[in-house]
Order: sequence, then C-alpha cells, then structure tokens
Amino acid sequence: MDIEFSHRSLGLKASEIRELLKLTQRPEVISFAGGLPAPELFPIEKINLITTKVLNEQGRQALQYSTTEGYNPLREIIVKERMNKSGVKTAIQNILIVNGSQQALDFSAKLFVNKGDIIICESPSYLGALNAFKAYEPTFLEISMDDDGMNMDELEEALKNHNNVKMIYTIPDFQNPSGKTMSVERRKRIAELSSKYKIPVIEDSPYGELIFEGSPYPCIKSFDKDGYVITLGTFSKTFCPGLRLGWICAHEEILKKYILLKQGSDLQSNTLTQMIAAKFMQEYSLDEHIEKIISVYKKRRDIMLDSMEKYFPKEVTFTYPKGGLFTWVNLREDIDSIDVNVQALKQNVAFVPGASFYPNGGNLNHFRLNYSNMNEERILEGIKRLGNVIKQYY
Amino acid sequence: MDIEFSHRSLGLKASEIRELLKLTQRPEVISFAGGLPAPELFPIEKINLITTKVLNEQGRQALQYSTTEGYNPLREIIVKERMNKSGVKTAIQNILIVNGSQQALDFSAKLFVNKGDIIICESPSYLGALNAFKAYEPTFLEISMDDDGMNMDELEEALKNHNNVKMIYTIPDFQNPSGKTMSVERRKRIAELSSKYKIPVIEDSPYGELIFEGSPYPCIKSFDKDGYVITLGTFSKTFCPGLRLGWICAHEEILKKYILLKQGSDLQSNTLTQMIAAKFMQEYSLDEHIEKIISVYKKRRDIMLDSMEKYFPKEVTFTYPKGGLFTWVNLREDIDSIDVNVQALKQNVAFVPGASFYPNGGNLNHFRLNYSNMNEERILEGIKRLGNVIKQYY
Repeated sequence: MDIEFSHRSLGLKASEIRELLKLTQRPEVISFAGGLPAPELFPIEKINLITTKVLNEQGRQALQYSTTEGYNPLREIIVKERMNKSGVKTAIQNILIVNGSQQALDFSAKLFVNKGDIIICESPSYLGALNAFKAYEPTFLEISMDDDGMNMDELEEALKNHNNVKMIYTIPDFQNPSGKTMSVERRKRIAELSSKYKIPVIEDSPYGELIFEGSPYPCIKSFDKDGYVITLGTFSKTFCPGLRLGWICAHEEILKKYILLKQGSDLQSNTLTQMIAAKFMQEYSLDEHIEKIISVYKKRRDIMLDSMEKYFPKEVTFTYPKGGLFTWVNLREDIDSIDVNVQALKQNVAFVPGASFYPNGGNLNHFRLNYSNMNEERILEGIKRLGNVIKQYY
Repeated sequence: MDIEFSHRSLGLKASEIRELLKLTQRPEVISFAGGLPAPELFPIEKINLITTKVLNEQGRQALQYSTTEGYNPLREIIVKERMNKSGVKTAIQNILIVNGSQQALDFSAKLFVNKGDIIICESPSYLGALNAFKAYEPTFLEISMDDDGMNMDELEEALKNHNNVKMIYTIPDFQNPSGKTMSVERRKRIAELSSKYKIPVIEDSPYGELIFEGSPYPCIKSFDKDGYVITLGTFSKTFCPGLRLGWICAHEEILKKYILLKQGSDLQSNTLTQMIAAKFMQEYSLDEHIEKIISVYKKRRDIMLDSMEKYFPKEVTFTYPKGGLFTWVNLREDIDSIDVNVQALKQNVAFVPGASFYPNGGNLNHFRLNYSNMNEERILEGIKRLGNVIKQYY
C-alpha cells in the first residue's frame, strides 16, 4: 500500500500520556502518569437510578438524534450553576455541549488558526491541547510562567511583535502540567489584552472547581467585556469522564461558528448521557459531590507533597498546587526525566516526563505527577521508590 | 467584536436538513425531511436492563476514561457480526470506534485532503458528508449515477485526468439521497480503480443492512485487495442514533492515523454507551432487531411509493429503493423544489430540497423524501397533500 496523507496529518504523533497509560495498566504499577479521576468516587448507584428514570420516562428522546447545540436542560444547568459559580453571567445561547473539553480544543484551532499562524500558550502547556492544535499546523509561541501563572508583560510583548497570533491558550486554574494558578490581577489583564489586540483567549478550565484551600478564582471570562474570551468547561473531573461531556461558553457570534464545526464533526453529543447528566444535577447536588472529591484529593495531595519533602533530594523543587490533579517536579538541568522514568518503571512507578509539554522542545529536566488516581498508601510507597531513583542522579 | 476566523471556517454553513428539522418539530407537521429512525422501535426496556447490569457489574470502568481505539468487546462484535455479514474478513486492530459515522467523515477529509485537492463524490451525495468535507477546503468533482450507482467509466476518466484526487466518497447501499444501490460489478470495479490509482475509497454504509428484498450486497471492501478501501459503519440506523456509535474499518496503517486524529479530536468515544451497545449485542440478537426495523420500514416505503404513484402527476419520476430510508423525486427541470417546499410547509408537509446535495450547485428540480420516521397513516396523508402542491406546477 502506498497512500498519500494530508500535510496536516504527517506531523501527528501519539500522545505520550495515552501510550504510557497502556504500559501502566498492570496492577502492580503505581501510576502517577494519567490525569484519571478516582473511580471509587463515581456516584454509580445514583447514576444507575437516574438512567433508569431517563429511559423509562423519556426513552425515545434519549436514544434519538437531537440538536447540535446540546440538550437544553443541561445547557441551563451549566449557565445557572457551573458558569455562574465561576462569576460568569451567561445564557444558554452561549453554551455548546461537546464531547469533553478535548473536542473544544480541536474546534478552537479549527476555527481560528490557519497554517503557520501563531498560537500563544503557557510554557509548559497541556500536551493533549498541543496535540489537538498541531493538526492545524500552527507555530507555537511559549510564554513563561511564574507562581502567578503566565507572564503578562511577556504576553503583551508577543502580541505587539507578531501580527499573526490567532489565539491565546491558557489553563488558569491548577494548570496542567505545572499545578500553578493565574492570579486574579493577571486574569483581568489577559482579558484586557485579548480585547485590545482582538485575539481570542481560550480559557481551559477543567480543574477550577477542585480547589483545596481559599476561595475559587473568578474565570477570565468574568472580566471579558467585549466577547473575546472563550471558556471551556467539562464534567470529566467533577463528575465522570467516560460520559464525555464538556462545553464551550462563548459570545453568540463565535458560538454559532463552533456549532457549525460540531455539526460537521459529529452532528451532536450523546443524547442519552446528556440527559443522564442533566437529571443527575436536577435531583442531586453536584456541589456536594465535588466536596467529596475535594476532600479525597486534598488528602492525596498532602501525602504526596509531604512524602516528596521527605524522600526527594533537597535540590529537587516542585509546585504546591492549591487544587487540581497535578504537581510539577524540577530536576537539575542536566537530568533527563525520560531516563528517570525508565528507571522508575523498573521499580513499577510511572509519571509523565516533562518534555512533551513544551511544543518547541527542550526542557527535559521536569516531570508531572498526578495524585488523584492512587490511594494514600500507594502514593506514599510510590514517592518513596521514586525518591530512591532520583537520589541516584544527585 | 471584531475577530478573525480561519479561512476554512468562513465557508461553513448550517446543514439545511438540521435547520429544517427545527421548523418541522411542530407536531402537526408531517415531516419527510430528516433521516430519523422510528423511535417506537428503539429497544428501550432491553437497553434499560442492560445499562443497569453494566453499571452494577462494571460501573467504575464504564464511567472512566478508556482507550482511544474503543471498547474491545464492541470492536470484536463489529468484526465478527457486522463486517463479517458484509463479506469483510477483518480484525479488531482494523476497527476504530467513533461518534457515529459523521465523525469518520470529518476524519477522512482531515486525513487525506489538503486545501484545493479533489474529492470525488456521487452526484447527488450526502449533504452531511459534503459539509464535513468543506472544512478542509476541497474541490468537489461529481460523478453521475444511473440505476446501478456511480458511473465507473466517468470515474476512471476523472482519475486519469486529475492528479490531485485524494479520495473517492461513495454511499453504495440505498444511497442518501437518491435511494440508488451500486451493482456488485461496479463494487468490484471501484475497488480495482482504487488500487490502480492508489486513491482511497471512503465507503459510507449506514443503510446496507436495512434491505427489504433480495440478499444484501457485499461491501466494496470485500473486493479490496490492497487496503485502499475504508468502510464506515454505524449503529445509528440499526440500533439507536442517540448513543453516537459508529466505526471505521481500514488497513492497519491507515487506521493508526485515524486513531491519532481521534485522540486529538476528543480522546475517545463515550465509554458507557460503548459498553451498553456491546452488552446488548452479547445478550440479544441485533439481527433480530434489524428484522423488526426492516418489516416496519418496508411497509412505510410501500405506502409512500404507492401513494406517490396515485397522487403525484405522472410526469414526476422517483426512485424505487430496495432498502434504506429515502426516495428521490425528480420534477420538471424548470421547477424549483425550494419553492415547492415552501408551498408544502403551508400544508404542514416537509421534505429536503435537492440542491444542497450537489456540492457544485444547480439541480434545483429534485427533492428527498424520508419514509422511516412517520407512520403509515401520516405518510399517506402527507403524500396526498404533497401531490396537490406539486400538481399546481404541472
């Protein structure tokens, strides 16, 4: 066979995380690699009751085609509960239901980026987003971060100096992979820059509600006066990822375009699971469920960070995330985290090496650790083993 | 707001069908417009039982992230039951689960087509596919059809004369919109041409199993010696469209690329509904369910065609489909079916005007009628009314 593929598909490669996850499915592996929620927290019995109701009461509707925009009661819940809680006043005509926010990432590059255009992102940034964007053949411009998130002066400099920036991608809350959070001041500033330069900000916010201490940060979109900020939300981390439910919240003129992309891409999201999610959130409190998740993840974060303090060499630094799923580890510059991962896997411990979070390469000396998917005992044991592996490099 | 969209998204427009469907949701409208299955045939009770089992027995797995390729038991069922029944010997490493075959259409153009490249399609062709393809800025080359489907000499001529054809798109069984079926001889020939010119054939086969008389036709892929034929299947017409489950069957080298596109686009299809579909097909016979659908749709087709004979002017011609969901009506050349639709809507009858099934325009004097979604009484009444409307033009 000798077949010609499109230019855009030539550069695609498998997500290292998803490939790594296959290796880590052996039960003896202590995996800090994926970004998987804790499945023991899924409200299985309640979902079972709700599903029976949906099928008994609205079975024909639940199994039939429905509108591209999404199931209206679910869109309403997103407006009134999720977006409102993040400080965003919006309406259902600003909400499109998608198959997890990953689909919204794909659509965003499809909607804004021509070949060679610049996408601005944080350095490091979420690997799954970078992979989705790559299909549209962009150039990436990375902006450095400090403890308050993306550096705004550097961002403005980039916007001034390049006339083909087409979108700014940010994960403001407990960023994947760095665990860092953008300050409120910078949220205001990025919204202003977005308006000033007329460049959309894609605000990817899967973790904002999983906050362990302090009060939640307002979305960047809550400071958006002119409609340039597009917020991506998801139920994957606060409810169940297997249901593939996320949303796009955008100015109506922009959302119309996203709806057309959704129509061409797969007509609509799953009718049944949209109805299950909506009914669940009508009959139970998602906020209460999120509280449960937070209390478990907070303990797991604490034990991971405490163990890292105890078992990692003192020279190794890492983020103290105030929420979300990840911490980010910085090794000495000459250490290659891919090599460390190979050594760790021999001890049945896995993580994601940092290099693939940098679209323009380099930065081999970092890695990402997830604490949501392993219980406390395994976290302690895993970090102990990992500490021993790292010590060999120091 | 003044925002710059990508070139590819400037040409997108809403599917006329989905826009029309919104107009036809008033209960008094007799709609022959959509391609909706009959919801009264959905096996709701069985799905309810199956879902309870899946959640009780494998709840954590069903609600968690899973692999991009799809749920293995479902891939196996597709190999052993669906593809095998269509004459295709294949294996699970050749199957990728997608959100209905619409997603496979989007991926196909994404995988093979650069801006300006040629996509060959039947004239007319499925509007939803044309819309999905348009996002990749192709040129369309339409090949005429007769009662045996796409004209193969014209196809070979086109392949000879153009060096930037990147894919051939065909719906061989009870085509949408024309209701026509490609002969076995032509299926062999198109597979040969595909190998000879090294151009992939996208064989879109949503209706092949809904055959009312005679034996089912073998897939084009069953004649594929070198791996150039890619078959798209779906459970939307034989099971439930709301579950959004379709598949791609392709040579492993090609499928790997599709898997990467799926990974970037939305990570994976819905875990829960994949498991529901697999368990349903393990515990019940999908073939028996399809038999039920066929017996109902066959009666509806019969009453539609009989009524058209009776109530349409004799000069009006239309397809006698041997399966599937649609018949295709040809009016006198000077009649604009959009105008006819406006008149028909005043009588509360809807259909889809034919023009949007021709990517290069023209052909206003045709329209598509669906017979799967209305009961016999409404079909009879709707065709009577439509006959009266059409008579005013003759």
